Amino acid sequence: MPALETRAAPGVLPRRCDHGVIVRTLATCVCGSDLHTLHGPGAAEGMVLGHELTGVVVETGRDVERVRVGDVCSVPFNVACGRCANCRAGRTGHCLRTNPARPGATYGMGEGFGGWAGMQAEYALVPYADFNLHVFADPDLARERLLDVAMIGDILPTGYHAARSAGVGPGSTVYVAGAGPVGLASAVACRMLGAAVIVGDLNAERLAHARAAGFAAADLASGELPEIVAETAGVPYVDAGIDCVGVSDATVAAAGADGRTPAAAALNDIIGVVRHGGAISVAGVYPAGAPGARPPLGVWLGGIWSKAITLSSGATPVRRYQEELAAAVLLGGVGIADAVRATAVPLAQAADAYAQAMAGAGCKFVLVP
Amino acid sequence: MPALETRAAPGVLPRRCDHGVIVRTLATCVCGSDLHTLHGPGAAEGMVLGHELTGVVVETGRDVERVRVGDVCSVPFNVACGRCANCRAGRTGHCLRTNPARPGATYGMGEGFGGWAGMQAEYALVPYADFNLHVFADPDLARERLLDVAMIGDILPTGYHAARSAGVGPGSTVYVAGAGPVGLASAVACRMLGAAVIVGDLNAERLAHARAAGFAAADLASGELPEIVAETAGVPYVDAGIDCVGVSDATVAAAGADGRTPAAAALNDIIGVVRHGGAISVAGVYPAGAPGARPPLGVWLGGIWSKAITLSSGATPVRRYQEELAAAVLLGGVGIADAVRATAVPLAQAADAYAQAMAGAGCKFVLVP
Amino acid sequence: MPALETRAAPGVLPRRCDHGVIVRTLATCVCGSDLHTLHGPGAAEGMVLGHELTGVVVETGRDVERVRVGDVCSVPFNVACGRCANCRAGRTGHCLRTNPARPGATYGMGEGFGGWAGMQAEYALVPYADFNLHVFADPDLARERLLDVAMIGDILPTGYHAARSAGVGPGSTVYVAGAGPVGLASAVACRMLGAAVIVGDLNAERLAHARAAGFAAADLASGELPEIVAETAGVPYVDAGIDCVGVSDATVAAAGADGRTPAAAALNDIIGVVRHGGAISVAGVYPAGAPGARPPLGVWLGGIWSKAITLSSGATPVRRYQEELAAAVLLGGVGIADAVRATAVPLAQAADAYAQAMAGAGCKFVLVP
Amino acid sequence: MPALETRAAPGVLPRRCDHGVIVRTLATCVCGSDLHTLHGPGAAEGMVLGHELTGVVVETGRDVERVRVGDVCSVPFNVACGRCANCRAGRTGHCLRTNPARPGATYGMGEGFGGWAGMQAEYALVPYADFNLHVFADPDLARERLLDVAMIGDILPTGYHAARSAGVGPGSTVYVAGAGPVGLASAVACRMLGAAVIVGDLNAERLAHARAAGFAAADLASGELPEIVAETAGVPYVDAGIDCVGVSDATVAAAGADGRTPAAAALNDIIGVVRHGGAISVAGVYPAGAPGARPPLGVWLGGIWSKAITLSSGATPVRRYQEELAAAVLLGGVGIADAVRATAVPLAQAADAYAQAMAGAGCKFVLVP
Repeated sequence: MPALETRAAPGVLPRRCDHGVIVRTLATCVCGSDLHTLHGPGAAEGMVLGHELTGVVVETGRDVERVRVGDVCSVPFNVACGRCANCRAGRTGHCLRTNPARPGATYGMGEGFGGWAGMQAEYALVPYADFNLHVFADPDLARERLLDVAMIGDILPTGYHAARSAGVGPGSTVYVAGAGPVGLASAVACRMLGAAVIVGDLNAERLAHARAAGFAAADLASGELPEIVAETAGVPYVDAGIDCVGVSDATVAAAGADGRTPAAAALNDIIGVVRHGGAISVAGVYPAGAPGARPPLGVWLGGIWSKAITLSSGATPVRRYQEELAAAVLLGGVGIADAVRATAVPLAQAADAYAQAMAGAGCKFVLVP
Repeated sequence: MPALETRAAPGVLPRRCDHGVIVRTLATCVCGSDLHTLHGPGAAEGMVLGHELTGVVVETGRDVERVRVGDVCSVPFNVACGRCANCRAGRTGHCLRTNPARPGATYGMGEGFGGWAGMQAEYALVPYADFNLHVFADPDLARERLLDVAMIGDILPTGYHAARSAGVGPGSTVYVAGAGPVGLASAVACRMLGAAVIVGDLNAERLAHARAAGFAAADLASGELPEIVAETAGVPYVDAGIDCVGVSDATVAAAGADGRTPAAAALNDIIGVVRHGGAISVAGVYPAGAPGARPPLGVWLGGIWSKAITLSSGATPVRRYQEELAAAVLLGGVGIADAVRATAVPLAQAADAYAQAMAGAGCKFVLVP
Repeated sequence: MPALETRAAPGVLPRRCDHGVIVRTLATCVCGSDLHTLHGPGAAEGMVLGHELTGVVVETGRDVERVRVGDVCSVPFNVACGRCANCRAGRTGHCLRTNPARPGATYGMGEGFGGWAGMQAEYALVPYADFNLHVFADPDLARERLLDVAMIGDILPTGYHAARSAGVGPGSTVYVAGAGPVGLASAVACRMLGAAVIVGDLNAERLAHARAAGFAAADLASGELPEIVAETAGVPYVDAGIDCVGVSDATVAAAGADGRTPAAAALNDIIGVVRHGGAISVAGVYPAGAPGARPPLGVWLGGIWSKAITLSSGATPVRRYQEELAAAVLLGGVGIADAVRATAVPLAQAADAYAQAMAGAGCKFVLVP
Repeated sequence: MPALETRAAPGVLPRRCDHGVIVRTLATCVCGSDLHTLHGPGAAEGMVLGHELTGVVVETGRDVERVRVGDVCSVPFNVACGRCANCRAGRTGHCLRTNPARPGATYGMGEGFGGWAGMQAEYALVPYADFNLHVFADPDLARERLLDVAMIGDILPTGYHAARSAGVGPGSTVYVAGAGPVGLASAVACRMLGAAVIVGDLNAERLAHARAAGFAAADLASGELPEIVAETAGVPYVDAGIDCVGVSDATVAAAGADGRTPAAAALNDIIGVVRHGGAISVAGVYPAGAPGARPPLGVWLGGIWSKAITLSSGATPVRRYQEELAAAVLLGGVGIADAVRATAVPLAQAADAYAQAMAGAGCKFVLVP
């Protein structure tokens, strides 16, 4: 049971959070990056993982004014104070005060990410709650749509931020690389914004699901991407591309090591298929590498330059989008839970969900107490 | 003497341009890329180089309605029709109709760039004149300020586009990589927008000039860029970076060839010194490479991603900015000619100016008939 | 049969338009403002009315390069040259060169609006065709969806421009004043952008149709607008308001005349219901009045100021939006023809359609040869 | 001496502010609206007026994390919590939580404006300090430039917000109505952004000062505004207008009362001189009127509509701009103190400063303990 004063624990720094609240979990999701953390250097026995939480406020710190006990809420995956220059500018993905290591903090990823306890538990501490927590205007409707609203803490804003940053709007054509949950969430966001989407992947099962969700699917094994795009879009280019693939830590660790530079293949493919003057959003993770190192990846920079492409990137500032996304989801028709195959699993069986995810299950597990 | 019907010539495709005008040169500048063209594959005996023109209209095609004989004008370096989707969207650097080879055309660079005759002559043809030519509201003042207004066809808009794309405004801090004419023009643009600028280079003479022009100068040989920046900015980062260095065709040609990936060193340095949430504009040229090839450069992509940097790039759409830049230059105080060391040379001595430029002269040669 | 050289005629100024094309009508709509023109001071015997045209290009002027005979096209209601400062900036509703009287020209409204022949005929002249005409990428699909695409020349862009100018996006709530065709088109545009819409009117039949089209409807006779809004939105305010009511010439003519100032009642109601920091777009017409006169209307300016409302207004620059709207309409699901009750009527029976419109018919008549 | 727990007092509501700090005054300005408050319905014996404060933090509440004792700071005139939807969106002029009466609170204006004690004293309480207070990066330089930095709490951001909202940039032409401190601050902001400014007024002394400050001045008594503008701008219109005149409470109270509608004369003059597609920012105050009343003013709405003018308005959200304005002011060259004739007066002689201000003195009084 977390408290407003956190004690040192595996992956957790001790802090006093009178500005925080305790939330009782209604739903908490498993993310691909949790698998990452589980097997990464920051992992420690007893550490609570997870950064996507929807719940009910059960206790408020003495400095909390806006949030009330009983509020049904969605918590952004970024821990953000609301008081630093980045938070005030809306860049809550790079809060200057919640991670001693660098700008930006995330729950449940250990000390490198700020040392905040994760959310895959029955209760969680949410600091700076007045700023950094969305309260649903209609709690009953939110509970009814639990699987949909459970996506408002991470992947739906991630897809939406990518789409908005790339200027996606009615009539746009978009190519999304990667048909996992983030790719499908990006596709849903593009559809919300009135665009036509092609989702690309190598995995047949994921592609089949993307089609079932109503999107055009590009089987990257079937040919060159421009031709595949032309089959759907009529022309071998799109207005915008969203990279939901990223690159692994292992790839980055190897970069530069022996004179080799691994290719940013997915990104280069996207560059090849975005039109002149178009835009690319990089939602997939590209790790920075060890401090001081600047691991290079092989990027077709001339493709970006010759096409005058604008490229946006980085961790999503979730808080910025929660009100409009919650309104849109509760209004109806967004279909995010279906698109990402949100699958409820009892919290007590979290380990089983992790195992399935590790084995490549394509759904988005939602742990429910 | 050019005519409204162009005949095939070295580097020139035959066209009928009743929508064009003939301009008598008042000033035409030499650009680094002209040196490039001179020694590149597109060069041909008798080809007229040059893409920066300020002059007086002496003849108008039958389809010209707005421009009049006697108008003093500035011609954007991009040949743009004003009738295609890109031009209508303001993306005149990627006109779809003036270069059979690909979107975007430039005067005086041979068939690969659309096959339009260059401007370093006594007279030049400007097609689509009603759309693609700026007429000075005060021709007498424009003639008085000839060296300043001569910069409105290329380098001042290039610096301005880079600054605007990177969100530069009052109080911003900017690092400009490269103290050549484009770098100094970028610095001037940033100053116009109220920002503080640090210009970096390895060349002591260029650095001295940058200081003389009123900008902080960073000697890249003196240490690590973040520390150098901190000496001026107080902190080891800036709000925005402008890459005026680019990479040579030779580098790009070698890329990928033998398993090696040349590093985009200047860009990576900029990534290292831009703050989280900041922006980078790439004004320097990064060639796309041979068709079908996608030559990779080693880019610290994780630095871009971890800092959530927005990156803009590509050939400048000059026409978009000409009215406001002309107004600002004629209003006074911009100091662009001084900043880039605009140096008038008789047109008849153009070869001499080229020789000096080849030898590394840091000034911006303006050929005057 | 129009020609590329227009002769003086009722409401038509003589011009030579080698940059123009002749279009054979597939569909041409009747607009409320046509009724206005019919009974207004600019009307003349034999004048051709109408400014909304979808058709097939049958002849191209010698200076036309992009548009081809056989192209299926949508013509914006604004006559725009594409060569003046306003057109280049995208402000095609205020072209500086197509109306000697003032910036901005419209087909079929007489000399005060530039003296261009109207479109309610079998053939029409479209000047500056390369710039000012949208060619459908899929002509067969465009012909199949004729009633939908017929709306892309005026009312759909009008609603879309209003919605975009007011910052409407996913999750927004919008109040649209006026349930006529422009109001319904605005509602459709808001829905395309992911917003929830309430349409207000006093006319029960129009309100019933708005509901049938899928929008919440506010019967202004049933109470105060904030309470009516609260019934639907849950709170007595919305994010944005769109005024599709405007004011008549008669009202404006009376303004200021005898010391009275007619109230801008619809606008003031909207001000009362938009939230602090919200936005209002004024799509309905507010005539400027006689030259030199500045007829005042009673506006609750303090409501605008105290709520820090942003207000956008004026004739829609249609050309800017046609590509994305055409793409969205052909993609499917926009439902514009149904929403505005597009009703095909043989061109030969135009007078009958006018009569029904004068009598208050709520549909949008589309004249089809 | 204020405390972190405020007691009920004239014009002050009791509150507990552990999130606040106590600031020792270095400089606190007198504003025209203070005169207003002094003679208005909210005035009470013993009430402390004033809302512009620059000072040193001397005590921090237990919930303050970012601000430290000893920090030299600038306080925005808006009291803003940083935790409500408006504050998070940057609309700190309309905080939802600091004024029970309506969105938006201001220090020193009595209970109608939230009941916060004013700043014209030796010490003041600043609530929500972590969010709502700018700390100068260089406190020594800030103290040196005290008169300049004293303007960063109100009038410089007000002018800047007006200029930015109206799209002012390099080469723009702007007409500012009103040559008082807010008008001059708007002119300075426009100049920072690279624009050319004409300041209009009827008062010869103010006009002379505007010229001395380096701006073109329009004597409104000398003729029609379009002609006066043409003398300077060369054409009878400008790109943007800023209304720093507003209207008095008395005017608004009379509005609608006896069937009359007072004209918004200054605004209508501005409408007449802004170009088609231009913008107007309304910085001057237009009071909303009594609750339930919607006092109308005579606005030439047809002028706005026919020119497609965009109009922005309302209380400035100061916090949003403080970092960039502070950086620009400390960088040098802004000249705001000189432009508004900042005049230091001992705090103990505040009454004398008020008397002079009441008598029409054109300077900006800065009270210094």
